[in-house]
Amino acid sequence: MTKIILDCDPGHDDAIAMLLAWGNPDIELLGVTTVAGNQTLEKVTTNARALATVGSITGVPFAAGASRPLVGPQLIPEEIHGDSGLDGPQLPAPGVELDSRHAIQLIADIVAEQPDKSVTLVPTGSLTNVALFARTYPELVERVAGVTLMGGGHHTGNMTPAAEFNILADPEAAQIVFEAQWPVTMVGLDVTHKVLATPDRMEQLKKVNTDVSQFIAELVEFFGGSYMKERRYPGPPMHDPLAVAAVADPLILTTVRAPIQVETKGEFTRGQTVVDLRRTWNPDQAEDPSALGIADDYEADAHGVRHCVGIDVDADRFWDLLTSALTRIGTTNFRG
Amino acid sequence: MTKIILDCDPGHDDAIAMLLAWGNPDIELLGVTTVAGNQTLEKVTTNARALATVGSITGVPFAAGASRPLVGPQLIPEEIHGDSGLDGPQLPAPGVELDSRHAIQLIADIVAEQPDKSVTLVPTGSLTNVALFARTYPELVERVAGVTLMGGGHHTGNMTPAAEFNILADPEAAQIVFEAQWPVTMVGLDVTHKVLATPDRMEQLKKVNTDVSQFIAELVEFFGGSYMKERRYPGPPMHDPLAVAAVADPLILTTVRAPIQVETKGEFTRGQTVVDLRRTWNPDQAEDPSALGIADDYEADAHGVRHCVGIDVDADRFWDLLTSALTRIGTTNFRG
Amino acid sequence: MTKIILDCDPGHDDAIAMLLAWGNPDIELLGVTTVAGNQTLEKVTTNARALATVGSITGVPFAAGASRPLVGPQLIPEEIHGDSGLDGPQLPAPGVELDSRHAIQLIADIVAEQPDKSVTLVPTGSLTNVALFARTYPELVERVAGVTLMGGGHHTGNMTPAAEFNILADPEAAQIVFEAQWPVTMVGLDVTHKVLATPDRMEQLKKVNTDVSQFIAELVEFFGGSYMKERRYPGPPMHDPLAVAAVADPLILTTVRAPIQVETKGEFTRGQTVVDLRRTWNPDQAEDPSALGIADDYEADAHGVRHCVGIDVDADRFWDLLTSALTRIGTTNFRG
Amino acid sequence: MTKIILDCDPGHDDAIAMLLAWGNPDIELLGVTTVAGNQTLEKVTTNARALATVGSITGVPFAAGASRPLVGPQLIPEEIHGDSGLDGPQLPAPGVELDSRHAIQLIADIVAEQPDKSVTLVPTGSLTNVALFARTYPELVERVAGVTLMGGGHHTGNMTPAAEFNILADPEAAQIVFEAQWPVTMVGLDVTHKVLATPDRMEQLKKVNTDVSQFIAELVEFFGGSYMKERRYPGPPMHDPLAVAAVADPLILTTVRAPIQVETKGEFTRGQTVVDLRRTWNPDQAEDPSALGIADDYEADAHGVRHCVGIDVDADRFWDLLTSALTRIGTTNFRG
Repeated sequence: MTKIILDCDPGHDDAIAMLLAWGNPDIELLGVTTVAGNQTLEKVTTNARALATVGSITGVPFAAGASRPLVGPQLIPEEIHGDSGLDGPQLPAPGVELDSRHAIQLIADIVAEQPDKSVTLVPTGSLTNVALFARTYPELVERVAGVTLMGGGHHTGNMTPAAEFNILADPEAAQIVFEAQWPVTMVGLDVTHKVLATPDRMEQLKKVNTDVSQFIAELVEFFGGSYMKERRYPGPPMHDPLAVAAVADPLILTTVRAPIQVETKGEFTRGQTVVDLRRTWNPDQAEDPSALGIADDYEADAHGVRHCVGIDVDADRFWDLLTSALTRIGTTNFRG
Repeated sequence: MTKIILDCDPGHDDAIAMLLAWGNPDIELLGVTTVAGNQTLEKVTTNARALATVGSITGVPFAAGASRPLVGPQLIPEEIHGDSGLDGPQLPAPGVELDSRHAIQLIADIVAEQPDKSVTLVPTGSLTNVALFARTYPELVERVAGVTLMGGGHHTGNMTPAAEFNILADPEAAQIVFEAQWPVTMVGLDVTHKVLATPDRMEQLKKVNTDVSQFIAELVEFFGGSYMKERRYPGPPMHDPLAVAAVADPLILTTVRAPIQVETKGEFTRGQTVVDLRRTWNPDQAEDPSALGIADDYEADAHGVRHCVGIDVDADRFWDLLTSALTRIGTTNFRG
Repeated sequence: MTKIILDCDPGHDDAIAMLLAWGNPDIELLGVTTVAGNQTLEKVTTNARALATVGSITGVPFAAGASRPLVGPQLIPEEIHGDSGLDGPQLPAPGVELDSRHAIQLIADIVAEQPDKSVTLVPTGSLTNVALFARTYPELVERVAGVTLMGGGHHTGNMTPAAEFNILADPEAAQIVFEAQWPVTMVGLDVTHKVLATPDRMEQLKKVNTDVSQFIAELVEFFGGSYMKERRYPGPPMHDPLAVAAVADPLILTTVRAPIQVETKGEFTRGQTVVDLRRTWNPDQAEDPSALGIADDYEADAHGVRHCVGIDVDADRFWDLLTSALTRIGTTNFRG
Repeated sequence: MTKIILDCDPGHDDAIAMLLAWGNPDIELLGVTTVAGNQTLEKVTTNARALATVGSITGVPFAAGASRPLVGPQLIPEEIHGDSGLDGPQLPAPGVELDSRHAIQLIADIVAEQPDKSVTLVPTGSLTNVALFARTYPELVERVAGVTLMGGGHHTGNMTPAAEFNILADPEAAQIVFEAQWPVTMVGLDVTHKVLATPDRMEQLKKVNTDVSQFIAELVEFFGGSYMKERRYPGPPMHDPLAVAAVADPLILTTVRAPIQVETKGEFTRGQTVVDLRRTWNPDQAEDPSALGIADDYEADAHGVRHCVGIDVDADRFWDLLTSALTRIGTTNFRG
């Protein structure tokens, strides 16, 4: 059972990620924090609270965080997530009060209270909250088990030829998160583009046949429309749920250890996650053969490399995981 | 009477700034926060608490803040302030407990409790704390009366040809502070280099003839030695106290309103405060003649310019202010 | 029959490229120009002239060009090409006098004399000469048929995680070359790493059984040693000859049209060729279906995209081409 | 008698600079080259040739150079120099044929033919030609006596708060020129803004009472109008003629030696000439007292500093020099 804090900006795929985290039996959801990204902070926070109603999520504190990026200008991708940030299905009323603490204070309090290295942060939006937490409470960084984030990729992009949205939305924050002394697993476009909610996959999901699975189908319909219009995909990628899945079941994601830097100064590459896969070339740089290639866990290796990058994914296993989580949530009667 | 929070990294001139803020009758010192800069956070925080003993400062919360810059690497100017950050005089034991809150939480609580637009922030170190505060609690930015900071200059520098230490130590934080929607007054090298603790000035100060004035004389002796060795100055500049003095007595500093940007990306200019003084050339850009030239106050003008840059200083008036403050503090018997 | 000017910095693979250009019946080699890169200008120019002896190259003017990059610092990869730039085989005496003209003057004169759009530039080193030519004689740019260069890649690198040597050696020059109004075909690491001089391939080549094929085998032995030591490759990539081959036989290289930018300002990405492959996602951006995917020729398409990027290669066909060229050159008795 | 090549983009003040160079008895004008800047290359080249008619300039080769900057985008300041680049007076027909050589070839030929270190380059436009020359013919750089350029300033600007037009128009070229191993004297805004063509000064000039002095008066009237409208100056600065004057009479300009770098990467400071005046602070960095402060000549000093920056000017002496030159030219009857 892994304890996580989900830091998100729902967002269609964030919504599915949250429901997966709630329904999966191997994850203990300790808190949900929100950050501006797919829409404004106000909208994504309202969405997050409505999702608590959808999933009957109880006993989990929800706290709002950063309303804009650390340094650069704010991007809002309305063409993907619509005016509400969660266009498509009708949303119920928020089902949870907002915690009075700032997101970074909630994270700090949870990390301080929980056993050492027991809490994994799972950011599925831009990294502003996690960076603010790391800079404001640096003494807590080493108490965190790790960060498994959705974002970036191996030199591929969606917002620009080389940058993915979550990283481009706040590159300086991303740089802070990758530099901090905790293990970071990057679930980027290389793998999320391999987990598409195609019509076949959706048929599998709809068989759960609950109001929640119906809600997800409506999300995917809208989200998929954006992707099929903009990018000719056969279905929208399950970006954010894959980060949660990677924590829930280590067999879903294949990763390699490689140092990752975030480009913040480039003219054409701002927001790129620069992954150095070259050391696999050179045996002199890696006396320890086990350090090459596939990572067995997400810890730092003998060379101090604390970064793992997802390079492959078991999409069938992911869909089974998601289907099981929805089955476990069952019918919530959120539509009254 | 102006309420201020002093955000500092003592630091020789920070020490004098704190004593000036405490002794001046027109300033109400609501809090002291510390930030890594002239030395590590641990050292400057210890120094700040020792200064409370020196000045018999009581009833003022002291809180520690950021231990490193927001984005860039950390700079420690040991050649100026020595190993302790306050080399020279023997320091007494800390005279105040550290507040358990983080500096930005203390600032947030004070700003929220005090009347709207009644609190001025006076940062005399790098701007990491103020930037973290602005990004974490953006809703409180407009409750702050203004920021009067020591740092920068009109295209002059000390650490590099174009950058001053406090800004270079955290350029991204500085950019955040200048962009936030509060009035900012920049007390930079253009004016602080005009207020030197020359032997004549120090003779005036020593006539106060207390243990505190003696302490300051010892500070200046060490600090001045650094400056005379490195830069052939006849005495060390009173950088930080001038920011406090500008708040205490508006007649000390002459400023002009001008937009200020912080260069974060330059190869040779990182940390430069880029001041646009050109609009004084063009009557078309300034229909309101009063907007040109000297600023009467530190508020935003009709053109939305919220930045004032110090261009001249009444050094005699500053020394009288400092002398008066020390006289008011009197003998504290801090050396037992 | 395609007329080319080979702009090179021999360099082991440059040497093979030159011999391929000379021996291939579909290429008319109008000139050879040199540029600092794999070694200093002096050394690579001496090497180029020695190669004229090796291949009995006659009637072709050789001219020296730029001795350093346009703007940035100079890189010399001694670990790959050795002290001479062409370590391994014993080199014969230079077999050709150096033209008194500067490389860019020679290029200008040839382009002006030859029929409009009949000359293809084939740079296999850093792009300093080609950029200087484009900036000094902009009126001749549109007379050039195109530029087929070895360098870059789709967000892969060898010198850094994201930059290939020829581009990193002079990113500003590369940017000039990609921006100039001629068609550019980029033969980058994505394809050159698929054409390795493995032991099997070398067996095929050695069967030519001439002094020239023996010379190439000695080159590959040294060059391959560098690659196998540094990068655990089963043989060294045939970077530069592939650019010549792409001109000689259009069936060897598969390319797609995509806009390419060169990053010159990045902290971790300087020298990266940023390839925008995203428009293949979006039918709205490409009404002309033929503009998507594979390019039939290297001309600008209906959308003004003048850049083609190599994505696949027929390695067998390349080796046959190289073998044929060497067979055609025959024995030159360059070793006396 | 100093031999110079004037590299210019007339441009009002370039025009006056050319006439000063022609009329001054201590200058031998070996060539005039043109560069895009105040207007397009075509226009400034036509203007230069028309000025040959105005001044009866004969026996001097005129050659056209770069039509655009090396790397960055092109800027044309039409608001200052008008549509022709030389708006105001009626221009006569061009009085000289254009040399068939490119500007950089003309410079190379002259430098190679003249005695070693006898030719001073005087660029009064952007530095593209001089940079292309330095990069194409590096072996000739040390044969040049020095470069005395109009451009830059000590952290002051006109096009932006920190950048002067000639440098901002091609910062990479400027960086190349400052880095090349020749002495560079920078005649920047700090001094040119002290030499204004005020009504009083123009009265002095008009007393020469020739068609050429009348022509200059008409130039100043238009040029001054731009400056008075945009910047409320009492007269336009004599930017470019001051660079020629600094060569003609070393007593006109006071300079200090200081290392100069050109910022090419800054967000707000691109094109700034970063002048390090700090070493005058530190006796340890300058054991040789004569190296501090005022430069006696424009050669590199014992510390290898090859850059001199103008900090003061004898404006009276300049006006006398200009008046004498016009008197010497006399009436040319260029208006028929």
